[in-house]
Amino acid sequence: MDIGERDHDLRERARKVIPGGLWGHMNVNAFIPGYPQFFARGEGAELWDVDGRRFVDFMCSWGPNILGHHNPAVEDAAARQRSLGDAMNGPGAVLVELAELLVETLPFAEWALFQKNGGDATTACVTIARAGTGRRKILVARGAYHGAVPWCSPSLAGVTTEDRAHLIHYDYNDAESLKAAAEEAKGDLAGIICTAFLHDYGKDQALVDPEFARTAREICTREDAALIVDDVRAGFRLDLRGTWASVGVEADLSAYSKAVANGYALAVVAGNERFRAAARPGQVYTTGSFWYGAVSMAAAVATITTLRDEAAIAHMAAMGQRLRDGLGKLASENGLSVRQTGPAQMPMVLFDDDPDFAVGNAFCLGALKAGAYFHPRHNMFICAAHTPALIDRGLEAAAVGMKAAAQAREHRMAVA
Amino acid sequence: MDIGERDHDLRERARKVIPGGLWGHMNVNAFIPGYPQFFARGEGAELWDVDGRRFVDFMCSWGPNILGHHNPAVEDAAARQRSLGDAMNGPGAVLVELAELLVETLPFAEWALFQKNGGDATTACVTIARAGTGRRKILVARGAYHGAVPWCSPSLAGVTTEDRAHLIHYDYNDAESLKAAAEEAKGDLAGIICTAFLHDYGKDQALVDPEFARTAREICTREDAALIVDDVRAGFRLDLRGTWASVGVEADLSAYSKAVANGYALAVVAGNERFRAAARPGQVYTTGSFWYGAVSMAAAVATITTLRDEAAIAHMAAMGQRLRDGLGKLASENGLSVRQTGPAQMPMVLFDDDPDFAVGNAFCLGALKAGAYFHPRHNMFICAAHTPALIDRGLEAAAVGMKAAAQAREHRMAVA
Repeated sequence: MDIGERDHDLRERARKVIPGGLWGHMNVNAFIPGYPQFFARGEGAELWDVDGRRFVDFMCSWGPNILGHHNPAVEDAAARQRSLGDAMNGPGAVLVELAELLVETLPFAEWALFQKNGGDATTACVTIARAGTGRRKILVARGAYHGAVPWCSPSLAGVTTEDRAHLIHYDYNDAESLKAAAEEAKGDLAGIICTAFLHDYGKDQALVDPEFARTAREICTREDAALIVDDVRAGFRLDLRGTWASVGVEADLSAYSKAVANGYALAVVAGNERFRAAARPGQVYTTGSFWYGAVSMAAAVATITTLRDEAAIAHMAAMGQRLRDGLGKLASENGLSVRQTGPAQMPMVLFDDDPDFAVGNAFCLGALKAGAYFHPRHNMFICAAHTPALIDRGLEAAAVGMKAAAQAREHRMAVA
Repeated sequence: MDIGERDHDLRERARKVIPGGLWGHMNVNAFIPGYPQFFARGEGAELWDVDGRRFVDFMCSWGPNILGHHNPAVEDAAARQRSLGDAMNGPGAVLVELAELLVETLPFAEWALFQKNGGDATTACVTIARAGTGRRKILVARGAYHGAVPWCSPSLAGVTTEDRAHLIHYDYNDAESLKAAAEEAKGDLAGIICTAFLHDYGKDQALVDPEFARTAREICTREDAALIVDDVRAGFRLDLRGTWASVGVEADLSAYSKAVANGYALAVVAGNERFRAAARPGQVYTTGSFWYGAVSMAAAVATITTLRDEAAIAHMAAMGQRLRDGLGKLASENGLSVRQTGPAQMPMVLFDDDPDFAVGNAFCLGALKAGAYFHPRHNMFICAAHTPALIDRGLEAAAVGMKAAAQAREHRMAVA
């Protein structure tokens, strides 16, 4: 799809006043040139770009949109709080309401703290783990994304060796490699950090192996270290109790963000009694100018209660399965072999024999042209505003994309 | 002042679900027990606590409130954008508008990036400085606050030695100590970070010494390192062009947050051509789930244009001076010696011979009881919604506080 005129003009202007036109994960040039960069409007599970083109959206703001844009319960709660106050000289009563709701919802949690970015929460978890144990080593899965600050950023530009001095790597879902990493940290192990499931960029997803999760728990219990579950991306989409509740393993500390307030900026550290003291004033100091803002907290209370009361997770799983079934059928009708991995409500669609993503890109661009926004390499997201009719409209667009993908596949084979 | 009933109840509930009842800088127990912790409402330059007590507010949310709570221009712009979309799959057109406005407003800036916390922006500045120079050492003023992440947090709990491996300290406004630090970093100097003026906790403030600022600029120019001005706290309150514009010294990179969007969560890195390449995609990777949200950007555009069009900085300076004059008069009427340092629109009020802040605390508690919210140890903030009448109401309350302070002073002298 050609770039729209207004999008093109905005990019030209942006190039002058923003390095490279846009930073970070929303720079479309970094994943699929030809996608719109600027958006005019969102409603439910649909988006309009600045040139007025409408899309059934399967990225959901890369996670934050979980109930649909302009969900009435969330918007009402936020507007009500905003009419009173947001950033004041202290929090509103809603802070306590939200912390209580989280402690009630997350079985392992006995307390919560709030921030603005997922990376604020993962960094605070690591710092609390170190303070609470008096030790330094953190075990991190190779290739995992925990944020974009020096200790964990995917880029090493501007990062010093010392920023990562006390990280030891293991392979996700590989209990033996985790044990070996723990052995290496022996006597200095502060914690193990794990994403809720394997959702690395451009790779097949995998749910957490229960045996691996139990091993992580056992190591942390034995060594009196912190098991940190990074539930920033998956939190509130797979299991309201926290993603690892489904395998019966309790974290000591867990980080949430993205979907927790349906697009309002909020992050959460939730923790258990063992690490309460390290998170107290006088110990780890973590704060921010807007971290006490009442509006995003009101939005979070409304988001979590709506997810719970409307059984939204089951709905998202069903809509994800409907999409998955449809995409599988379309792929085989077009002679394409596609891998759809991980949880249905966080779809990942990768084509076989597509190392440079040429087939995946063709699929996405074709579908985009026909009105659906997919991602060729990153996991996607279903939200509660996806209806069967919207999924089916997405599949109609996907049918166009699959034809384009089949052509790209033929082209690849002709070249090879 | 006794803690209100509803505030008391909320604290009891908070203690169970939040470590120590509250984290970070808004925990009132950390500075002055007896202050309300929870707030119900903000309007203009006034606050109401959860027990319905009304205060003329001189903390202004610790900085973010610069035009007054519920400023119509900001709220209208935010509401208009919200009705379209906030967190989408990419930014709105307002991103470009805001970046252009900043480049137009800040003489040194040729580009901007956006984040959510002041600490996001200072950390990104340091990382961009390192990437752009290929060097590691950062010179930091002793005691300066640049955020609450491990490399710069005021607490060392959970912080490793390596987190601060490449920091070298100097004394603010001391050109010789800065030169010595630069000498120590010789060959590996990535940058110098300076707050816009000296505004350390519990100390007299001082505007930046022009000679010191020029020395910092000269060192960075000579060594091809980055001069980073941390304008997070002062930005948009002293000089719309950036605080160091008043001394004619241009930063290479500068961090803003707090007041930039009148309470909406936003931070800014602004930079010059020299460091554009290091901030490009493919170099420093800095991103966050909510960093592209259009509502806070719309709020920032409205905030900056309103500050400019309504000459709000001159008004805030005049209101700060009115407060300063009044407080000085009240102090001398009560036989108290008070130091009011730094810029008038960011008041700092410290009493002589008050090492444990007993006199300052008595002043604040007395004034609070009479309806004004002051801080005994941290710089305060004037906003554009402070009218002469509100300042005078604040001074009436301050008169009560000064009597209490005089009693505390007498008590101190009787004990000594």
